[in-house]
Amino acid sequence: MIKVGVVGGSGYTGSELLRLLVNHPEVEVKVVTSRKYEGKKIWSLHKFLKGFFDLEFKSPDIRYFDDCDLVFLAVPHGEAMRYAPEFLDAGLKVIDLSADYRLDKKTFEEVYEKEHIGYREAVYGLPEIHRDEIKKADLVANPGCYPTGAILAVAPLAEKELIDRVVFDSKSGITGAGVSPTDFTHYPNLHEAIVPYKVTNHRHYWEMVQELGRFQGDIKISFTPQVFPGSRGILTNAHTFLRGELELEEVAEIYERFYDGCPFIRLQDSIRLSYVRGSNFCDIAFFVGTDRVVVSSAIDNLVKGASGQAIQNMNIMFGLDERAGLYFPPLFP
Amino acid sequence: MIKVGVVGGSGYTGSELLRLLVNHPEVEVKVVTSRKYEGKKIWSLHKFLKGFFDLEFKSPDIRYFDDCDLVFLAVPHGEAMRYAPEFLDAGLKVIDLSADYRLDKKTFEEVYEKEHIGYREAVYGLPEIHRDEIKKADLVANPGCYPTGAILAVAPLAEKELIDRVVFDSKSGITGAGVSPTDFTHYPNLHEAIVPYKVTNHRHYWEMVQELGRFQGDIKISFTPQVFPGSRGILTNAHTFLRGELELEEVAEIYERFYDGCPFIRLQDSIRLSYVRGSNFCDIAFFVGTDRVVVSSAIDNLVKGASGQAIQNMNIMFGLDERAGLYFPPLFP
Amino acid sequence: MIKVGVVGGSGYTGSELLRLLVNHPEVEVKVVTSRKYEGKKIWSLHKFLKGFFDLEFKSPDIRYFDDCDLVFLAVPHGEAMRYAPEFLDAGLKVIDLSADYRLDKKTFEEVYEKEHIGYREAVYGLPEIHRDEIKKADLVANPGCYPTGAILAVAPLAEKELIDRVVFDSKSGITGAGVSPTDFTHYPNLHEAIVPYKVTNHRHYWEMVQELGRFQGDIKISFTPQVFPGSRGILTNAHTFLRGELELEEVAEIYERFYDGCPFIRLQDSIRLSYVRGSNFCDIAFFVGTDRVVVSSAIDNLVKGASGQAIQNMNIMFGLDERAGLYFPPLFP
Amino acid sequence: MIKVGVVGGSGYTGSELLRLLVNHPEVEVKVVTSRKYEGKKIWSLHKFLKGFFDLEFKSPDIRYFDDCDLVFLAVPHGEAMRYAPEFLDAGLKVIDLSADYRLDKKTFEEVYEKEHIGYREAVYGLPEIHRDEIKKADLVANPGCYPTGAILAVAPLAEKELIDRVVFDSKSGITGAGVSPTDFTHYPNLHEAIVPYKVTNHRHYWEMVQELGRFQGDIKISFTPQVFPGSRGILTNAHTFLRGELELEEVAEIYERFYDGCPFIRLQDSIRLSYVRGSNFCDIAFFVGTDRVVVSSAIDNLVKGASGQAIQNMNIMFGLDERAGLYFPPLFP
Repeated sequence: MIKVGVVGGSGYTGSELLRLLVNHPEVEVKVVTSRKYEGKKIWSLHKFLKGFFDLEFKSPDIRYFDDCDLVFLAVPHGEAMRYAPEFLDAGLKVIDLSADYRLDKKTFEEVYEKEHIGYREAVYGLPEIHRDEIKKADLVANPGCYPTGAILAVAPLAEKELIDRVVFDSKSGITGAGVSPTDFTHYPNLHEAIVPYKVTNHRHYWEMVQELGRFQGDIKISFTPQVFPGSRGILTNAHTFLRGELELEEVAEIYERFYDGCPFIRLQDSIRLSYVRGSNFCDIAFFVGTDRVVVSSAIDNLVKGASGQAIQNMNIMFGLDERAGLYFPPLFP
Repeated sequence: MIKVGVVGGSGYTGSELLRLLVNHPEVEVKVVTSRKYEGKKIWSLHKFLKGFFDLEFKSPDIRYFDDCDLVFLAVPHGEAMRYAPEFLDAGLKVIDLSADYRLDKKTFEEVYEKEHIGYREAVYGLPEIHRDEIKKADLVANPGCYPTGAILAVAPLAEKELIDRVVFDSKSGITGAGVSPTDFTHYPNLHEAIVPYKVTNHRHYWEMVQELGRFQGDIKISFTPQVFPGSRGILTNAHTFLRGELELEEVAEIYERFYDGCPFIRLQDSIRLSYVRGSNFCDIAFFVGTDRVVVSSAIDNLVKGASGQAIQNMNIMFGLDERAGLYFPPLFP
Repeated sequence: MIKVGVVGGSGYTGSELLRLLVNHPEVEVKVVTSRKYEGKKIWSLHKFLKGFFDLEFKSPDIRYFDDCDLVFLAVPHGEAMRYAPEFLDAGLKVIDLSADYRLDKKTFEEVYEKEHIGYREAVYGLPEIHRDEIKKADLVANPGCYPTGAILAVAPLAEKELIDRVVFDSKSGITGAGVSPTDFTHYPNLHEAIVPYKVTNHRHYWEMVQELGRFQGDIKISFTPQVFPGSRGILTNAHTFLRGELELEEVAEIYERFYDGCPFIRLQDSIRLSYVRGSNFCDIAFFVGTDRVVVSSAIDNLVKGASGQAIQNMNIMFGLDERAGLYFPPLFP
Repeated sequence: MIKVGVVGGSGYTGSELLRLLVNHPEVEVKVVTSRKYEGKKIWSLHKFLKGFFDLEFKSPDIRYFDDCDLVFLAVPHGEAMRYAPEFLDAGLKVIDLSADYRLDKKTFEEVYEKEHIGYREAVYGLPEIHRDEIKKADLVANPGCYPTGAILAVAPLAEKELIDRVVFDSKSGITGAGVSPTDFTHYPNLHEAIVPYKVTNHRHYWEMVQELGRFQGDIKISFTPQVFPGSRGILTNAHTFLRGELELEEVAEIYERFYDGCPFIRLQDSIRLSYVRGSNFCDIAFFVGTDRVVVSSAIDNLVKGASGQAIQNMNIMFGLDERAGLYFPPLFP
């Protein structure tokens, strides 16, 4: 049994980790922290978990983690960098769900406009692309929710250096904005709405540049995020302008080869968020037009876009079947 | 032209008053206040109103209202009592959209657990029941949203003293909870949900007791409110247990007579919130079963449940056609 | 391994059975039927299941079930009665998710207005009430979705013969209306809506009468169903008028005793459909007022209200742990 | 008073015309047709209109239109071409809300794959672009909902011939799919979803090509439509790649000049469908990034995207103030 701890158990990525870890056959959750709820039972905050955990929230003190093999950091960016080095130095493996280790230090500091006070080399935890490095990693930077859907949508074409320009137009469920009420998450503001935000300057953009750039350096990338009236899910349209023409069959072949052996990638002929809801799947469909190829990807932002992918990374880091604890059907409809 | 002011123009009832007053043929909006947004253009906060108002928000100082014939108080309960006496003494008519003047002083103080520091006699502003008193009133207490739908649903039966027991089970759009983000209004908490709250002790209950009690003193009344995933609307089921048996035709006749001459009451054979959305209508349908009569009423909580009814009251107070500025079709679907 | 078949695999209860059976450790799905999709791969219709089943839909011919120990009937009422006797006679256990075997023959024929052409004695499959009979049953009638939530809400009080009158006001997600598009399920008709239907005469009423009547013969029962803007979930308010007065602690004790040993009943202090979404839990909260006790129950209509409960019944019929394959956390939020 | 008739009054564009025409000060509705509901009162089908129309639906026989000055055709494409010539020949002005007259005959026949059996020259009824021609027109082809939002978003840049490539990614409320239930409009299929459809080949594309091509012949245009969980509204992101660089101020100036004198265009600094809901406004916001300009437009698909724009066209054709009957605030929130 892998013994794990969770730093930051009160938010959505924290509670989602707990939801998924409950039934993981090879994991025991030893400690979950929350400064705010220290001393409270986990299920008294996360009532949906009543019956599953008898633990109390602890303060994020490293001595509670003595026992642990791995720690998930489910805290806001800027916070994770305060914890990761200490845990790594104590011999734990670390999976950070924040943005702190996804970019190189210089880019991070520019994009997030803050000094990185605990920088270490990390592996970008997108298993479909970095599986071999993840196997050997001690520190995995779990990808952002938008980059997960966007990068997976076009990586196969980028790897063939086929892309001239790609425009990612993404629509996310509102849980991506976190558990704290704001004007952005206020129900009437999202009712019957599509709300674009950070239209040309969302920070997740830089993960797309970094990861797609590994395959093909000269792709022109654009990205616009939006929220839609729903709790979970990210639907990304990748409007992809190619350097040449491709038939549907050629596209299909490129994707099938690229994703061979990837249990959580499903190539579909139509795309619905309900086909992936609650699951770790990333469904991908492509539509070949006369002007461009549109690749649509669907993920659950809290699973493949966050906590599920973190567990997938853990599985790989510990030599387990990548699917352990994660291979169950989505909640449809 | 009636010259009106609005105290408290930044919330939903305030902006809804503005939406409705724009096209009122007999009204000129002279002043709108907001402490928080003092000095800002109204449309810069309420962007949906761009093109309609060039006013700036003022502080709620009575000197800005010199000009006015009437003031709408669209502030939280406990606040209105600070303004009403001053305006009344200055000769303005006052329509208070808060709870401060709906109940007698003693009941108010018990239910709202605070001293009433500016009590005056007021008329309960439900025109279908108090039209004649509203005509002569200087201070009208605009009813709560839930009581509006609940009282109108069964008043005709109460007036005939036919009711033994009535259970109001109401479902409201979330705008009733106001413009400020809270856990209650946080999108993921209302997504795919029905959330009961104050299940046996909502304060609006006392308006139902007071107003139905005018007709029939011994009705047993129960009330449970809930919010549903929507912005606007209140659907109330009045599960009504009668003292005798009534046929559908008899019920219909009782309602038709009672609401004769009430332009905003529509008796329908089915009930949908979309049939009243954005309008001042209260639709009523009744279903006669072997065990009870269920009367369902539908209103838009911000219109007939708040700002529209306030304007209807204003029309009556100033001798206008009750429908002035309010008689337009709902926004369906 | 229990070998099971599913008759009627194209609808929501059918696909939900498949979703849940995939990960059941003691079950093998041998055959799934659909006249309409005969010969098609299951995953080509239920795309969310891609990767999980390689079976094709069969016609509902008994010879395909040779191998099976149990069959789930997930067909419309009136259809199940055509299949059940044949399967029973062939030695299979049968769990019928339709209404055909829930009521005695006479009541069924009156309520459903059709002749029952294949009547057999069945056990009403609400495990929290009929666990011992289910153990020995060959034919289990899986309860309706509304009755499940309603009966579980007040059974403990009924068993103590404490109830004078109960009014069930229920709100269901729209999947209860099935997979075929109708005016009722047309998106704009449910958008920002609460739609009461069969307000005083829904057929599920008779299951409540039958089952609560086993405990206490003279309860006055009323029931009104509605749909709310969501896919899954049923929230039932049981407005319960007692014969005497009870303190909160007494109510709590009654419920705790009654549901002792019931792994899928959770007593909560607040109620949210998101606390049970996708799971087999029935959450119950009670609110003791001066006029009545309101008991609110929350279930997922497709799980505890249909397919999950069917599997719970199967577990009991085959001597497995009642929780097998079903004891995982809900999908929150 | 302009006397108008409506052919096709049972669908959403028909009922929306009625909603808007009710309060138009210069219009009298003389006849509304529906084959399916012939002889029924309009309000008995469109219950939200109870109290507003006492007319019955007629069959679409030209003799009922004797009296009329103008007819709105609110029938499916392929149907309008059967009516328009007859009405025109009888001396009525015609506004066709279908696709039948938006494209030249040859393009129409290719795109819609049917013979055009009643072709006439028409004016494309986008007033912000064709106001002068509309004034003189007898036959106006009311634009598609998607093209309205898309063309208005970038016309000012196209007129300056500044665009290299534009990608329209649009999200529509589901009323655009019409009043008849289908799998596409089935509630569970749209719940918590964004559903792309006709991803690279929606027919509205050709209106964008035609109209933007009038300004600048060589724009590369791409278009993908989607539906989102809502009843009304279209949010279009125009990802616009320019030939040179523009500062925000320059963009602003171009838009302000282009839309000077256009009462229904509002330039906003943020974009929300709730700012235009139920109204004839098209709100436009632009976001200038380093890679592109994103112009977002918001309309109500049934108003500015259909029936409201039709009335705006009528106003212009009859020399009325363009705003007559249409200049009221949106329904926020």
